[in-house]
Amino acid sequence: MDPEITRQQVEAANAAALENMLAVQPAWVDVTPLGELFPDLPPMTLTHAGPPVTWGRMSGAQRGGVIAALLYEGWAKDPAAASQLAEDGLINLVPNHDLGGVGPMAGVLSPSMHVFVVQDRVSGRRAYSSIEYDSLFGCWDEHAMDELWQWNACFYPALRRALGPLAEVDLIQLMAQALMMGDELHSRQTASSVLLLRALASSITSENPQPAAIATLNQLAGNELTFLPLAMAAAKLIASAADGVPLSTIVTAMSRNGTEFGIRTSGTGSAWFTAPAPKVEGVYFPGYREEDAGLDMGDSAITETVGLGAFAMAAAPGIAGLVGKSHGELVASSAEMSQITAGRNPALAVPQWDMSGVLLGVDVRRVVQTGVLPIIDTATAHRDAGHRIIGAGVSRAPAECFTGALNTWFALNLSDEPAELDHRERVP
Amino acid sequence: MDPEITRQQVEAANAAALENMLAVQPAWVDVTPLGELFPDLPPMTLTHAGPPVTWGRMSGAQRGGVIAALLYEGWAKDPAAASQLAEDGLINLVPNHDLGGVGPMAGVLSPSMHVFVVQDRVSGRRAYSSIEYDSLFGCWDEHAMDELWQWNACFYPALRRALGPLAEVDLIQLMAQALMMGDELHSRQTASSVLLLRALASSITSENPQPAAIATLNQLAGNELTFLPLAMAAAKLIASAADGVPLSTIVTAMSRNGTEFGIRTSGTGSAWFTAPAPKVEGVYFPGYREEDAGLDMGDSAITETVGLGAFAMAAAPGIAGLVGKSHGELVASSAEMSQITAGRNPALAVPQWDMSGVLLGVDVRRVVQTGVLPIIDTATAHRDAGHRIIGAGVSRAPAECFTGALNTWFALNLSDEPAELDHRERVP
Repeated sequence: MDPEITRQQVEAANAAALENMLAVQPAWVDVTPLGELFPDLPPMTLTHAGPPVTWGRMSGAQRGGVIAALLYEGWAKDPAAASQLAEDGLINLVPNHDLGGVGPMAGVLSPSMHVFVVQDRVSGRRAYSSIEYDSLFGCWDEHAMDELWQWNACFYPALRRALGPLAEVDLIQLMAQALMMGDELHSRQTASSVLLLRALASSITSENPQPAAIATLNQLAGNELTFLPLAMAAAKLIASAADGVPLSTIVTAMSRNGTEFGIRTSGTGSAWFTAPAPKVEGVYFPGYREEDAGLDMGDSAITETVGLGAFAMAAAPGIAGLVGKSHGELVASSAEMSQITAGRNPALAVPQWDMSGVLLGVDVRRVVQTGVLPIIDTATAHRDAGHRIIGAGVSRAPAECFTGALNTWFALNLSDEPAELDHRERVP
Repeated sequence: MDPEITRQQVEAANAAALENMLAVQPAWVDVTPLGELFPDLPPMTLTHAGPPVTWGRMSGAQRGGVIAALLYEGWAKDPAAASQLAEDGLINLVPNHDLGGVGPMAGVLSPSMHVFVVQDRVSGRRAYSSIEYDSLFGCWDEHAMDELWQWNACFYPALRRALGPLAEVDLIQLMAQALMMGDELHSRQTASSVLLLRALASSITSENPQPAAIATLNQLAGNELTFLPLAMAAAKLIASAADGVPLSTIVTAMSRNGTEFGIRTSGTGSAWFTAPAPKVEGVYFPGYREEDAGLDMGDSAITETVGLGAFAMAAAPGIAGLVGKSHGELVASSAEMSQITAGRNPALAVPQWDMSGVLLGVDVRRVVQTGVLPIIDTATAHRDAGHRIIGAGVSRAPAECFTGALNTWFALNLSDEPAELDHRERVP
């Protein structure tokens, strides 16, 4: 250990990072088109999940998401023209994380698409995310495009009107209830989504014409992932609250674009530490098999970044079938993750743990020291563009992301040391 | 063991009783005033929870329920007149179970009060139950009477209209979902109640005038026990399907009136085997303490009779605080109950048990042999009339109910044997 920086200093930095995360009070405050939220986006901008990526290196499913978005905006008249536009470098591709937002799966969003807006009551910071459309698995067929139109023309505006009289919906309280009801708040959002319906049902009916109210209530009743974007945006606000604490080794983002897995950490600024995206191990829906699968994709791993998702599978016995695990394996996974986290979030209590909070703060040092890699429960997209969801399972964040982050930490903080040494002996 | 009746014969009888229970397909089919469901009730009839009881022996809270019902019907002008009517023996008191129904807590229902009607799709048999009003804890103040009026004048009729286009709601499917979401379907109905709201939201809006729709949606959103009567009526249909199998030692009802705890069994007809009602051990709400508590009360133990409630607390970690137990104790309670049950209900799977079904069929023989008494998680009423809920916890069915049932079983089936012998050595 380098004498210049003590373990106590790093622990203090990480404690400060955790304190910043625990101070966040995310509330759902708006529904608005992405282009209204960011009026100064350059022309032909699309956002995407994961660390930065070019069309040339983009995964099939994410390319499909780009094609769907270009068709939705009317920037391309057909899929071939959409691909050509992207191929010609005429599309401005921006990671959601660079805008302070997150998108499920391909994460490809365009200016006309609405997003849920979540705000930290304390700092006023905002994050956004969207419904997990079929288009975000890379599909642009008629049904997928209809889904985009229906959400943006009817359901989002109806929800915006319904939110009006409520002003905001406290998300920590709702997520805490959902953890008591078997959600881990990434791949299982059954309870949170129906709790959201419960919170909105009467104002959907009072604030909308009856046909729109009925259509929206039916949509919410039939969609067990409605809450996913709100959980993701809340997690983004919590995780990014830890940004920029010097010396801190806490992870502030984990994300994937289907080609690369990337992480950011508190003490290393906005740099992404990337490695090839892993496979998702799990189950396949009828008609699909392992060879069809694309690699790990989506900003949704922001939920694991704050101790939800696979880190909280002990709270969600009902997810066992979806991810192909036994109840005992779910409990063991959560216990394993406690080896690499720095604290807990008491506001999000897990009843199976006698109301101890979810694990909070993946510490890069612990990941490198223990070799325990963060686990993520997630949906699986096809390797090629044009498909819907094909399965679900779990993935592991690549070790290289964490050694890379630690290399940079050493380079930043211990400039006289060569970055190539074996870190395990040297981590403060 | 008596040579006339072999263990195999009893096992076969119990297997038949279980098969009858597993065949039930309960669906919510109607909402109607009790008096319309039973047009031939004698004048001045009120129903009540538990085995038969007179006003003179009635618990304070159940007396309060009688007073509230008499005021609600307009049969008495004030509480003193109501008590006098009952004291004079002018009220016809009928156990809900005798009408094939069940009522929460005091269980006192009157002809003008609506009930949820649940039907077995296979046999066409019907059961009923009602919302757990404050009046059913023995309270008749202005707020309690308003609650009765609002439900009967607005919410029940609105639900009846909403049910119209659906025709019925499959309760096994909904209860199975709720078990995946942390309900044990007796004292915790958070998931089932919000799933019911989800199932009805759009038809509440489409089938009612907007003000009634909004009021009803708000009522459902604010009541986490809306599903209790549906769970109870479904459980009553399942349990009573086992009635009348000769030689069977399976329990077909457990119920309490605040004075006595009673059980019925499959092979002993409609006889109640009773013992003094036990205390409820648990937690008290602010302002109340153990000395205030009435004894165990309500038909709701019909849920435990079919393996829900305390028998399924392992599925409901979120109930720990309400009943004053740790997560480990909840899991242990469910495991203990497996010693006295004859089978499982695979249609109601518990994710914590890797989707094994809830325990089904309390076997009187096993209760007597093991000394393990059925556990019930329940609300606590005041010992005196005029109060609301004061706490919650768990109770144990008294051993005397089971030895009494076994005495009668022996008397019925082995008439040459004295009934007073120690059964434990002799049970087939």
